[in-house]
Amino acid sequence: MKKWFFPLLIATFALSAAAHYAHWNSILQFVTAAVAIVFAAGFLGKATESVAHYAGQRLGGFLNATFGNAAELIIAIFLVKEGLFDMVKASLTGSIIGNLLLVLGASALAGGLKFKEQKFNLHLAGQNATLMLLAVIALFIPAVFVKSEHLSEQDSLTLSVTIAGVLIVAYAGWLIYSMITHKSLLEDHEEMAPDHGEAASWSRGRSILYLVLATVMVAFISEWLVGTLEVFTHRFGLSELFVGAFIVAIVGNAAEHSAAVMLAMKNKIGAAVEIAVGSSLQIALFVAPVLVFVSLLFSQHMNILFSTVELAAIAVAVLIATSVSRDGATTWYEGKLLLLVYVVLGVAFYFVQ
Amino acid sequence: MKKWFFPLLIATFALSAAAHYAHWNSILQFVTAAVAIVFAAGFLGKATESVAHYAGQRLGGFLNATFGNAAELIIAIFLVKEGLFDMVKASLTGSIIGNLLLVLGASALAGGLKFKEQKFNLHLAGQNATLMLLAVIALFIPAVFVKSEHLSEQDSLTLSVTIAGVLIVAYAGWLIYSMITHKSLLEDHEEMAPDHGEAASWSRGRSILYLVLATVMVAFISEWLVGTLEVFTHRFGLSELFVGAFIVAIVGNAAEHSAAVMLAMKNKIGAAVEIAVGSSLQIALFVAPVLVFVSLLFSQHMNILFSTVELAAIAVAVLIATSVSRDGATTWYEGKLLLLVYVVLGVAFYFVQ
Amino acid sequence: MKKWFFPLLIATFALSAAAHYAHWNSILQFVTAAVAIVFAAGFLGKATESVAHYAGQRLGGFLNATFGNAAELIIAIFLVKEGLFDMVKASLTGSIIGNLLLVLGASALAGGLKFKEQKFNLHLAGQNATLMLLAVIALFIPAVFVKSEHLSEQDSLTLSVTIAGVLIVAYAGWLIYSMITHKSLLEDHEEMAPDHGEAASWSRGRSILYLVLATVMVAFISEWLVGTLEVFTHRFGLSELFVGAFIVAIVGNAAEHSAAVMLAMKNKIGAAVEIAVGSSLQIALFVAPVLVFVSLLFSQHMNILFSTVELAAIAVAVLIATSVSRDGATTWYEGKLLLLVYVVLGVAFYFVQ
Repeated sequence: MKKWFFPLLIATFALSAAAHYAHWNSILQFVTAAVAIVFAAGFLGKATESVAHYAGQRLGGFLNATFGNAAELIIAIFLVKEGLFDMVKASLTGSIIGNLLLVLGASALAGGLKFKEQKFNLHLAGQNATLMLLAVIALFIPAVFVKSEHLSEQDSLTLSVTIAGVLIVAYAGWLIYSMITHKSLLEDHEEMAPDHGEAASWSRGRSILYLVLATVMVAFISEWLVGTLEVFTHRFGLSELFVGAFIVAIVGNAAEHSAAVMLAMKNKIGAAVEIAVGSSLQIALFVAPVLVFVSLLFSQHMNILFSTVELAAIAVAVLIATSVSRDGATTWYEGKLLLLVYVVLGVAFYFVQ
Repeated sequence: MKKWFFPLLIATFALSAAAHYAHWNSILQFVTAAVAIVFAAGFLGKATESVAHYAGQRLGGFLNATFGNAAELIIAIFLVKEGLFDMVKASLTGSIIGNLLLVLGASALAGGLKFKEQKFNLHLAGQNATLMLLAVIALFIPAVFVKSEHLSEQDSLTLSVTIAGVLIVAYAGWLIYSMITHKSLLEDHEEMAPDHGEAASWSRGRSILYLVLATVMVAFISEWLVGTLEVFTHRFGLSELFVGAFIVAIVGNAAEHSAAVMLAMKNKIGAAVEIAVGSSLQIALFVAPVLVFVSLLFSQHMNILFSTVELAAIAVAVLIATSVSRDGATTWYEGKLLLLVYVVLGVAFYFVQ
Repeated sequence: MKKWFFPLLIATFALSAAAHYAHWNSILQFVTAAVAIVFAAGFLGKATESVAHYAGQRLGGFLNATFGNAAELIIAIFLVKEGLFDMVKASLTGSIIGNLLLVLGASALAGGLKFKEQKFNLHLAGQNATLMLLAVIALFIPAVFVKSEHLSEQDSLTLSVTIAGVLIVAYAGWLIYSMITHKSLLEDHEEMAPDHGEAASWSRGRSILYLVLATVMVAFISEWLVGTLEVFTHRFGLSELFVGAFIVAIVGNAAEHSAAVMLAMKNKIGAAVEIAVGSSLQIALFVAPVLVFVSLLFSQHMNILFSTVELAAIAVAVLIATSVSRDGATTWYEGKLLLLVYVVLGVAFYFVQ
């Protein structure tokens, strides 16, 4: 870490906070937040890498995904409380496709331009594919049944709550499986493990502290940035769906994004995949069902029914990401393909009113 | 086999028969049949295992699947004769998803709790995936074309009969391929073959005789049980779709179920997969098309068009089972995932009227 | 090449040309063209094989696919100019499914009856699967969005043009990837490479010249044959969709077809797959988007929206071809399955009015 980094990190964060809380001009708020997030995301990337150095790529990736999604979960709970279910679902959709296409694509492309082929654990790739498929199934089934069989609103909600419960059970099982019973099976091979010759920048304790700190900073700045973006987008006449699924999701995942790309460029593609895919899985298997349960505490209850275009986007992202990662290796061209699918979805969502 | 087994097997079977033919109270019929099927299924599992000891895991699995489905085919022909096409299709659907999710899931979970990872023939996994996909395609294509192009009833029937013919040709080819031309390619490796050190309980001839006998017993008890279940379910207000797809299918597959789980717990997951997947394939590629042809003998003709929710359920089951088994290995967590998808489908079908 | 071949090739070509330009009776035109194409396709197959001898299986396959599709592109441009968009899309659909099911299926079946298992490059199989998936996604997304969100005609066209651009960028990237940066990764292993012991029939230069010449001849005869087929099919009352998707596509792909089957029977399945899958990819990623751009030069603009049954057929063909080829090996049974799916689609399209 260069010496000038921490002062600049703190200064840009403070400036963005001032702009937000003092209600400066929207454009100023946006600019200060955008600059601040560059430094905060860089800090988070470095901290994640340092934790991964001690904890192994997978646990490091899991920690990063969790901290990255904590921010999204908190923001979403506020939206659920206000009954803005469509925007919640749009941002969940955007978060899933953003991680699978933009984050994974940019990582594979950036890493692939430097290394001919980057390999990661084959078992993990297969398990990830199956879990992502479970998420797609769990979101599709209620939509298909409600549409073709005209279920009542009460039945839809009961079905949603049951499916939300199933997803959380699946996620809990996955944690037990991947962290305890089959940990060794899913680890990256020795030759791809973090380079132990490379000296760590920080001690183990400091790395963890910085990881938490950086995540909190990114969460704050993301929220400030999201606030300004809504003003911006209303001026440009963009739909809520597009803003939720692309603008909010890109900004909200800036942390995962920068961390994953940095790891991929150091040939630690296993950790990058864990961040991108792990984050998507957390959104689908944990954040979304938790929000369904949380909504039961409020007057309006949120079901788990996504719109046709949202389901199509999620299914498409899962299919192509699975096809790319199934062989346990990535190249620049596979990264490019993922980014192209992201562009196709972006343009399609742009035209939806 | 314990000494007390055969007397109990015969006694419970006789009691259930008495209850059925003497038209005892429905609840008594249900209880006696439920107890009898536990013993009959255990007998079938033991017989299958013994035949597999002599014949190899795959042929043993195929025999089990065939004997298991003979009962279902006979029951379905009676339903077709009476024009109850919806219930036939619901029970075919339930049988496919029950085998792929419940039987395969319970086997992988039970075996996986005992063994860290259970491997089976990789070629077989790939071939099974392709065949299951063919079945899904053959059921989807007529549904899509009839719906979007509004085909006439006559055209739908001609299309159905053609597709039924194609499926039977595909199944016949599969038998030639897997039993004759490429037998060796699909066999399990030596280290996973049945343990020849373990002494067989019965001689080869007696094993086969018992297999046939056990299958016949299970078929009879299943039918008696199905009869009582309809009474039960009417009292509980369940839909025909739910009864056909879940209650009938679970009971009708009790034999496959118990045999597969027992084999998986002895680390013979290859035979368990053969039973579960092979049984699904037989239903889709042989039983369903045969029923279409059989219906041509009666006044009302059955087409091969399944409802949207049935197709969705079959597609979902095939997708997740394929994703789980593609790597030629199963773990407890994969078994759990299959069971969770079964729960999701069960809840969704429950709400359909 | 037998001595009598070239005189017969020239004679049948000349006769077919005479029949076409002198406007003979439709039946005579059809018969002469059908005979001529048998010889021309045989010539093309031999020339492709000879070029593959010098250039390696993959480049040979790519050249064959490109020359084969040049004819289709030219014919399609004339159809676009006349605003016959439905027939263009039907023939593109037919070309994709014809290559993936009929050409690949016949190759795998013919080769598989001679060789127990035919292997090809595993990396290539995975990359092909991902690219085919990209093509399906790019065609599905606009259809789903336009249908469920009722996009305006102008928005549909803008979306189409963007997606066409994305597809061409993806195709250009694929050429760079497969021919330059990752060439070695995708090549067939030495033991499957063309047999260098076998003497080549022609010199390198002559082989290339013959390849070009044969392609041009096939292109001409195909067009003459297509002209006569339309007359034929009107007499038989077949729909434009069926004629475009099956008759036109089968005739238009006769060249790829014969070349691929001949290569498969010489155990060069890698080149056969490259022809079949490579040709499909060229149609979807290059020919279709180029036609969208070309249509902008004319008064009527063609969008990239395919009908539901066309999309279903393409998706089904991609799914089963991917499932069959994913393991980098083919057998006779897999070839048979592909042909059976082709039959199912053919029958289904036959009933569409």
